[in-house]
Amino acid sequence: MTTRPPLTPIIDALPSTVPFVGPEAQQRASGHVFRARIGANESSFGPSPRVIARMQEVARDMWMYCDPDNYDLRMALAAHLGLGKDNVAVGEGIDGLLSLAVRMYVSPGDAVITSLGAYPTFNFHVAGVGGRLVVVPYENDRESLDGLLEAVKREKAPLVYLSNPDNPMGTWWESDELIRFMDALPQTTMLILDEAYGETAPASALPPVEVERVNLLRMRTFSKAYGLAGIRCGYAFADAQVIANVEKIRNHYGVSRMAQIAGLEALADQSYLSSVIARVAAARDRISGIARENGLAPIQSATNFVTVDCGRDADFAMKVMQNLLGRDVFIRKPMAPVLNRCIRISVGLDHELDVLAEELPAALAAARAN
Amino acid sequence: MTTRPPLTPIIDALPSTVPFVGPEAQQRASGHVFRARIGANESSFGPSPRVIARMQEVARDMWMYCDPDNYDLRMALAAHLGLGKDNVAVGEGIDGLLSLAVRMYVSPGDAVITSLGAYPTFNFHVAGVGGRLVVVPYENDRESLDGLLEAVKREKAPLVYLSNPDNPMGTWWESDELIRFMDALPQTTMLILDEAYGETAPASALPPVEVERVNLLRMRTFSKAYGLAGIRCGYAFADAQVIANVEKIRNHYGVSRMAQIAGLEALADQSYLSSVIARVAAARDRISGIARENGLAPIQSATNFVTVDCGRDADFAMKVMQNLLGRDVFIRKPMAPVLNRCIRISVGLDHELDVLAEELPAALAAARAN
Repeated sequence: MTTRPPLTPIIDALPSTVPFVGPEAQQRASGHVFRARIGANESSFGPSPRVIARMQEVARDMWMYCDPDNYDLRMALAAHLGLGKDNVAVGEGIDGLLSLAVRMYVSPGDAVITSLGAYPTFNFHVAGVGGRLVVVPYENDRESLDGLLEAVKREKAPLVYLSNPDNPMGTWWESDELIRFMDALPQTTMLILDEAYGETAPASALPPVEVERVNLLRMRTFSKAYGLAGIRCGYAFADAQVIANVEKIRNHYGVSRMAQIAGLEALADQSYLSSVIARVAAARDRISGIARENGLAPIQSATNFVTVDCGRDADFAMKVMQNLLGRDVFIRKPMAPVLNRCIRISVGLDHELDVLAEELPAALAAARAN
Repeated sequence: MTTRPPLTPIIDALPSTVPFVGPEAQQRASGHVFRARIGANESSFGPSPRVIARMQEVARDMWMYCDPDNYDLRMALAAHLGLGKDNVAVGEGIDGLLSLAVRMYVSPGDAVITSLGAYPTFNFHVAGVGGRLVVVPYENDRESLDGLLEAVKREKAPLVYLSNPDNPMGTWWESDELIRFMDALPQTTMLILDEAYGETAPASALPPVEVERVNLLRMRTFSKAYGLAGIRCGYAFADAQVIANVEKIRNHYGVSRMAQIAGLEALADQSYLSSVIARVAAARDRISGIARENGLAPIQSATNFVTVDCGRDADFAMKVMQNLLGRDVFIRKPMAPVLNRCIRISVGLDHELDVLAEELPAALAAARAN
């Protein structure tokens, strides 16, 4: 047997797993190109034309390293949020920031609380530091604030994750309910509040921006409503001391020059963002209508996707998804118990939803026949 | 006193430090724009025109997530290297890959071997996992292979870092000497061989590409000769099992769609790369000439920079650098003992080296007078 450099016990014990299989991999496997790419909660509406023009303009400057301070973008985000620059950190998408937050607060064996079926990439990073995931079931298709709180206290967890609005269900809590939850949270427990879908949520679902709560780390992204998933740019805001600790371990050159410039320009074009939010709402309505026409039950959503209750068990929903994939319609579905009776459809352009409307009846019929 | 969520002991103990201060921060502080940006070992020659055109073309596609497998780029890199796809990992620059490698092999308290004055970002990431840095002095301005080997054995270190060609000195070892070093290395010690400057080195400095050595992890980048520092794209190649372990902890969506596409196109334009390599060599010669004309001693370099012995102590070299910075010429210098008698000047465009030639005499005179 070959002698090898030993891995750390934590890494050695990790399974070979990936948080997501990308649509590119599915296309490579099938040999087909998806006719509708409405599975990864991307924004088919794309980034602002101003952002596209700016990226084209600066492409030739990419020989220069990015600013490791992310200064211009942090200043703009701080102004946008009404905070100081020291309250803002920028990362390689929310994913990158989750990895750092987990490293900051989770020692091997520590309990980390999340919901059963919530964001797999968070779980992936918790496993990566040897954390012990403790999961709380959804209640009525929403993350259970009471359940999360109870688990935090029971496990004396240093970290709890909550997405609001929620992925994969699209549901949300109102701000006053979240504040009640945060007020009840032990001060020694850090809450990651993932607001990736904050822009498409009702204003009433977003707690006021403040950084007085030293156990709150909020994260947002340019990947969803801003239409820049491929550029990898997310941000966190919190008490300055929390942000200063992020600085201690982040990859200082991790956010590309292109991402910083694109984020800056995207933030400056709030009128484009407003237009996208309106298009997202219209597309959600259309997806819901298509679902109802096919006898399915769309769940009300504050995100850029609609999760649809297929009305039977997990096997059935899986068949519906697979039948759509087989018809070159890329969608995904929740996998955890109870949630797994659903499929999840991201908003898309009219012609993509036309394809959905066209293919869903046959996909359902085949699932029922099977 | 406010109660806060406790940091992990490792993060809590970390100093607030950053690996590098970027030129943008220096410009913000001085209020001036650098007339010559020749300090960060970027490529002023820029990326290939084909790469620029391709980035402009795909800017509008950035609403799509990147392929988390980095499939196309890994396939192209594998073909380029004569390896399999499973021997290649792509990351957010070499920096991102170093962070992962450290997490894979270093448990808190483990010794990690590097050279005194070598790449600070590696040290930053070692500190970030609670590793214990053990540094070996350079010998004759080269990293000391014998010294590194002795330290590895003495400390039973799981990880050793070597840059070849070296940054910040520009020196290098020939392949046969490296192979002797690798043959002598304990099989339980992983060697990170950082070949960021591999493209500008003589072919004789690069060991043959092979992945039979299970304790060797080589890293290269699109940041240097390929002129894409701002896009954040580096790669590692190694035995497939090593790469499979990288997969367990990396940020799967960390390398942007733009970076993957730019890297792919850059790799395809090897004739542009050749032209850059020739321009780098010419610019090194010119920098060396300017140094000699001013009574300084350039050190022979295999990289895209020239490190120049200023012939006196560290204070003097520091003054020379500061005087150049004060004249809006961005350069850097080594900071570790012995090396710190030098300044480091990156290759640049003719007009940038004109500025250097113009300003260096006065910068030296002021340093001597002071």
